[in-house]
Amino acid sequence: MPIITLTTDFGTRDHFVGAVKGSIYSELPDAKIVDISHQISPFNIMQTAYIVRNAYKTFPKGTVHIIGVDAELSQHNKHIALYLDGHYFICADNGVISLLTNEIQPEKIVEITIQNHYFLPFTLENFVKVACHIVRGGTLDVVGRRIENIKKLSDFKPVVTNDNSTIKGCIIYVDNYGNSISNISEKLFKEVGKGRKFEIDTRGHIFKKLHQKYSDVVTYSEDTKEYVSKDGEALALFNSSKFLEFAIYRSNLEIYGGASNLLGLDYLKSIEVRFF
Amino acid sequence: MPIITLTTDFGTRDHFVGAVKGSIYSELPDAKIVDISHQISPFNIMQTAYIVRNAYKTFPKGTVHIIGVDAELSQHNKHIALYLDGHYFICADNGVISLLTNEIQPEKIVEITIQNHYFLPFTLENFVKVACHIVRGGTLDVVGRRIENIKKLSDFKPVVTNDNSTIKGCIIYVDNYGNSISNISEKLFKEVGKGRKFEIDTRGHIFKKLHQKYSDVVTYSEDTKEYVSKDGEALALFNSSKFLEFAIYRSNLEIYGGASNLLGLDYLKSIEVRFF
Amino acid sequence: MPIITLTTDFGTRDHFVGAVKGSIYSELPDAKIVDISHQISPFNIMQTAYIVRNAYKTFPKGTVHIIGVDAELSQHNKHIALYLDGHYFICADNGVISLLTNEIQPEKIVEITIQNHYFLPFTLENFVKVACHIVRGGTLDVVGRRIENIKKLSDFKPVVTNDNSTIKGCIIYVDNYGNSISNISEKLFKEVGKGRKFEIDTRGHIFKKLHQKYSDVVTYSEDTKEYVSKDGEALALFNSSKFLEFAIYRSNLEIYGGASNLLGLDYLKSIEVRFF
Repeated sequence: MPIITLTTDFGTRDHFVGAVKGSIYSELPDAKIVDISHQISPFNIMQTAYIVRNAYKTFPKGTVHIIGVDAELSQHNKHIALYLDGHYFICADNGVISLLTNEIQPEKIVEITIQNHYFLPFTLENFVKVACHIVRGGTLDVVGRRIENIKKLSDFKPVVTNDNSTIKGCIIYVDNYGNSISNISEKLFKEVGKGRKFEIDTRGHIFKKLHQKYSDVVTYSEDTKEYVSKDGEALALFNSSKFLEFAIYRSNLEIYGGASNLLGLDYLKSIEVRFF
Repeated sequence: MPIITLTTDFGTRDHFVGAVKGSIYSELPDAKIVDISHQISPFNIMQTAYIVRNAYKTFPKGTVHIIGVDAELSQHNKHIALYLDGHYFICADNGVISLLTNEIQPEKIVEITIQNHYFLPFTLENFVKVACHIVRGGTLDVVGRRIENIKKLSDFKPVVTNDNSTIKGCIIYVDNYGNSISNISEKLFKEVGKGRKFEIDTRGHIFKKLHQKYSDVVTYSEDTKEYVSKDGEALALFNSSKFLEFAIYRSNLEIYGGASNLLGLDYLKSIEVRFF
Repeated sequence: MPIITLTTDFGTRDHFVGAVKGSIYSELPDAKIVDISHQISPFNIMQTAYIVRNAYKTFPKGTVHIIGVDAELSQHNKHIALYLDGHYFICADNGVISLLTNEIQPEKIVEITIQNHYFLPFTLENFVKVACHIVRGGTLDVVGRRIENIKKLSDFKPVVTNDNSTIKGCIIYVDNYGNSISNISEKLFKEVGKGRKFEIDTRGHIFKKLHQKYSDVVTYSEDTKEYVSKDGEALALFNSSKFLEFAIYRSNLEIYGGASNLLGLDYLKSIEVRFF
């Protein structure tokens, strides 16, 4: 039976998440529900897209992803369901889908038209009914009417200067470790850089080197025959999602901070890669 | 197989929740466990009742709800299990059940009398054994002895003035968005108001209108042919639980606040509805 | 089918936990995954060991525990899998296993040698593959090569003075209630104390009594025929893990604090038990 995942800005104290799960189990006693995140910053579509984008592909094809962020049904915020990259997504037509991928187009999109007889917080009841319908093998056409266009949002795209000397980007996410993830992909970096030397200017710090992984800053001392940890050292690397990321080795936001505050690389802070 | 839900004040960092789940799976390898909340403010019975009350009904009939708040077994805090509204509840006799509902009486209540051979934090082991017993189809009488009375707690009830002109209530919960939920139900509002005009005084803000949903504050501009979002606008509405709630449209406590702080509508703050 | 548990320092906002679960379900559609904690303080091996140590035993024998803390694969941080006390553990060779138990030796340890074709944050992909292999009934020898030694870390051990008059210990964990747990076990206390009188000096507070449970501070008044709660009273007891713990009765860190701050008993604060 396909999995249903949940991504919301409900937080985990209130009854909202429990109520959604109860509704799903009431419809579908054998449902398999997996939480992706309930800690999205309220109404933050960019953050939602970042998290869903990085999580959904690891799930089996056919998984149904409910996105309960900014999802109150209204004239200007329709409910949609769609099939994209082998996965189903159920969400509001608030632009979040356009941020998931630039490269893959949804194969099928419907505006959800089933009635909801009562309503859950932020009308997720609609989403629950559609998710259970899909999990039971139903088609999108039964729960909605085909539409071709959904709302487009642009995320912050890096800019390449005309002379191909510079990529200007910005920080689009700060993770649990305070690592700052930029919108500059490894692909773009390589296409523009073509193997040239580079420096990465974060206004405050210049990186002249990219590491393969965080622990590459650890060095082996021939003198002491021991590994020398470099806790607190700043580094830049392409992370597992293949985007340029800035980190402080073994950072801890609770205790001594991370790249986001120690390097001043908070959300939307601009950075620049210069090739020469 | 019936679901077991967990509502506790354990938080999610410590080993407590994992240990309870491990104990359940050790008793009942095929258990289906659903978290309602582990972020209850420690020992807060009112908050516990609010959350369980709003979540339990969405689960299938026959679900077993473990409430692990203020649950250390003692002479003055007995362990009980009961059947109420088609659901089983296992908790301490600390008043939480009396806050779940005023209208429905438990059909059967037992004081738990099985021995616990070892003890988990706050003796939830007892609860685990009883929950697994019920899930396996056992009766309450096997694990306890029938009692008729349980501890009663009163929640904050709204007061209607003798002339039926005013309902005085207060805020009983603040949710993840900073929305402030009062103890004034739509039912009471309509019974007292009988369709009269009204104003809602929160001491600082007068609401003369109730919205159907949050996004009703958004308006359509004939000039620009666009929807005009009203982020930050204060509104009042009956929420999905049918209680009077105050909200700031698209609020975010992390960034710019919600009704609880921007309107000063924190827990127990009094409000007044005047009809005329 | 054996359970897979997850203990990480990933937090619950980011996509990391969802991505790990998606990977597991992609390998093993019927997997049973249980979260122990994702709120470990980043890179904190001591805290990880404390939480895993107190949770793992409640799970059925044969459970597979993934520990995703400080787990980036490198020359100096190998990936290991082992069988210990009837449970499987998959983690980095960073010392965490040596902190789980002093008394039980792993029966079998392998250094994981399977290739990982792509990588998840901090290379948990490796752990996922090994966990699924074990759950499917595979042996450790297929995924790694036998090793005999793993990294040893010492936790903070209590010291007994030569004359057996004093145990010097320290606080090793502060829980969700602000309760402060020391490294002095009930076993050591009894072996050294041999039933003598004692006082426990926390530098600021002297405890001359140990309670059996938290609510033992509540007293029954013959005058009023009522129980008198003692909210805010400091107490010492052996907790459910059988270690000396300091608590404030019904403490709440959000509102008025707990033993950790009210008694100044934060992490690593020293305490002393004197017998006479």
